[in-house]
Amino acid sequence: MNFKISKKEFLDALSLSSRAISSTTPLPSLSGIKFTATENSLTLVSSDSNISIRTSINNNDRNALIINEPGEIVLEARYILEIARKIDSDFINVETIDGTLVKIYGGNSEFKVNGMEAFEYPNISFEIRDNEPFKLETTLFNQIIDETSFACSDKETRPVLTGVNLSAHDRKLYANATDSYRLASKTIDIDTDLNFNITVPCKYLNEICHSIVGEKEVTIAIDNQKISFIFGNSIIETRLLDDEFPDTSRLVPASFTQKLVVSANDLIKAIDRTLFIKADGKNTIKMNIDSEKLELTSSNQTMISSFERIGVISYEGTPLEISCSGKYLQDALKAIGSDEVTINFLGELKPMVVKKEGDDSLIQLISPVRTYH
Amino acid sequence: MNFKISKKEFLDALSLSSRAISSTTPLPSLSGIKFTATENSLTLVSSDSNISIRTSINNNDRNALIINEPGEIVLEARYILEIARKIDSDFINVETIDGTLVKIYGGNSEFKVNGMEAFEYPNISFEIRDNEPFKLETTLFNQIIDETSFACSDKETRPVLTGVNLSAHDRKLYANATDSYRLASKTIDIDTDLNFNITVPCKYLNEICHSIVGEKEVTIAIDNQKISFIFGNSIIETRLLDDEFPDTSRLVPASFTQKLVVSANDLIKAIDRTLFIKADGKNTIKMNIDSEKLELTSSNQTMISSFERIGVISYEGTPLEISCSGKYLQDALKAIGSDEVTINFLGELKPMVVKKEGDDSLIQLISPVRTYH
Repeated sequence: MNFKISKKEFLDALSLSSRAISSTTPLPSLSGIKFTATENSLTLVSSDSNISIRTSINNNDRNALIINEPGEIVLEARYILEIARKIDSDFINVETIDGTLVKIYGGNSEFKVNGMEAFEYPNISFEIRDNEPFKLETTLFNQIIDETSFACSDKETRPVLTGVNLSAHDRKLYANATDSYRLASKTIDIDTDLNFNITVPCKYLNEICHSIVGEKEVTIAIDNQKISFIFGNSIIETRLLDDEFPDTSRLVPASFTQKLVVSANDLIKAIDRTLFIKADGKNTIKMNIDSEKLELTSSNQTMISSFERIGVISYEGTPLEISCSGKYLQDALKAIGSDEVTINFLGELKPMVVKKEGDDSLIQLISPVRTYH
Repeated sequence: MNFKISKKEFLDALSLSSRAISSTTPLPSLSGIKFTATENSLTLVSSDSNISIRTSINNNDRNALIINEPGEIVLEARYILEIARKIDSDFINVETIDGTLVKIYGGNSEFKVNGMEAFEYPNISFEIRDNEPFKLETTLFNQIIDETSFACSDKETRPVLTGVNLSAHDRKLYANATDSYRLASKTIDIDTDLNFNITVPCKYLNEICHSIVGEKEVTIAIDNQKISFIFGNSIIETRLLDDEFPDTSRLVPASFTQKLVVSANDLIKAIDRTLFIKADGKNTIKMNIDSEKLELTSSNQTMISSFERIGVISYEGTPLEISCSGKYLQDALKAIGSDEVTINFLGELKPMVVKKEGDDSLIQLISPVRTYH
């Protein structure tokens, strides 16, 4: 194997590949990236066995890549990435010099890395078995994940809650995430008949969002075992979570008794000033709401308490005293992303629903916390 | 106690005070800052029993501070700092409302903090017993510490090596730091007859350097137990390290057999490219030097090796092969801070000395590492 590659193209490909490298892989070869140079292209494959990435650079553009000799090798990801970053030259040369020993050089620098044989690397097919892959604008896909994934559980007690549930039927695409204390629920219209119901691990979705930034469109293919994202010369596939995702549609109350409209920014800033007040590691805010004002109090019972008062834009219903996690409310307000937000209540014991007035495409539901002070 | 203070002045004083707050203090009151409001000023005292800080704000400037009622209280440092940061107002009001309960308010926010009685706070005298305090420009003091403190030991096996030794005699001030593998040694001329030999903990010196940035001059007073730094309306005192600092003057070889002059920047960059190659957690570089070139190699023996070649400006002596810590050499080169550096050698087994040609005021000595490959 012998090729010469533009440092920029190489770094881009290595950075993408590194997103699938885990520091705690059971299989030694998976700490490496598999490089395959053919007459026409260089392909990098990486995987932690849950998420796998394949990306290629074609030698159509002779300013990006020149393949002098085809070949295959697996090189330790952290070494090759570090070397490509450090070499002070527009081009980087990679050359097998003896068995699995590879010389990587450019500028004043020359590195030798002992790699592994390509046959030691597991075979990853990247096969698309789905017969109805669909396209989404990457900005829309990233928005859907941004608006929901923060609500995933970070605990492994119910693994399926660590993922975002994506489902489609009746020309609608749904994204739901819940840790059982809050729910983020997004609905968009789509112009094709899709039918699936899968749950994708949140941490991999975030890697995918970062990977596709800069692309206009991403093609998504789904089968029983995995979801694949195809963009540019790259494909990322990730395993799905097996368990059934809870039916979240029944969690949202059908009617409400109180409705608050408030400046999202005022409320975000007021919460921000009290978030540091924690009892047992958690910040809880108590809201006292009537048609005149919204008062927030937070306390750790013995040492410190806070009191904030902001105006309301409108309030319907009887005055309400309700407590919830300050962080959860702040996350929900930020996800809604509008100047004015509506918060619907059904008394102090039922979940509250945060949304933009007149827009049910994004709903943030938060369970109240009982407080005794 | 009741005062109103400019947020900016308050934050400056609180940030300075926080430098003496440790998260692991044995004495509960030391997690707090003691506030003393008199008719004329507000004074903040903080300490972790090794470093203590006193800073005052006078009410001469009525735009900075208005004292409505004198008094004393101790308030948890992390709370008061967080509150002062969060309050969205140019002025912050602090008011004792019931015993040790203090109300802090401004803008839309009101916080209540339960403090501690001032008499629970240990008495810290900040007394200056030294009869010959001397002044230094803060930029000069910070430079001396910058050029030496990185060479301190970070291990507690020989506590005295975790400090910078400051000594003065014969109208010279000396700063020395060593971890027994390297030595940073700075000498400056002073225009007064001072006589002392003390060792100041490195971590406190760094806090002091940060604290005095922006001041023109600092007054330094030394006694057996402590060193005090007086600047503006503030004083910082820190305990000294008891044990005798080793005599470092004999470590520097009196003569050399090889002398290399090289571009510091070229060498720093070459080392930078190889620092990630570590064997047993440590990076070692082997230098091959002759009158033509300086070659650097680094290896972890089995997986990866690097080779760099840079030009030399001049080299005197027989060709040399010598190994040392890449990080130590890089630290030394950066501390010297000149375009060209001189490295003097006495064979491959004795320490090398890095300095600026013709300038012995700053010397960086590095022990070689024996390598067997």
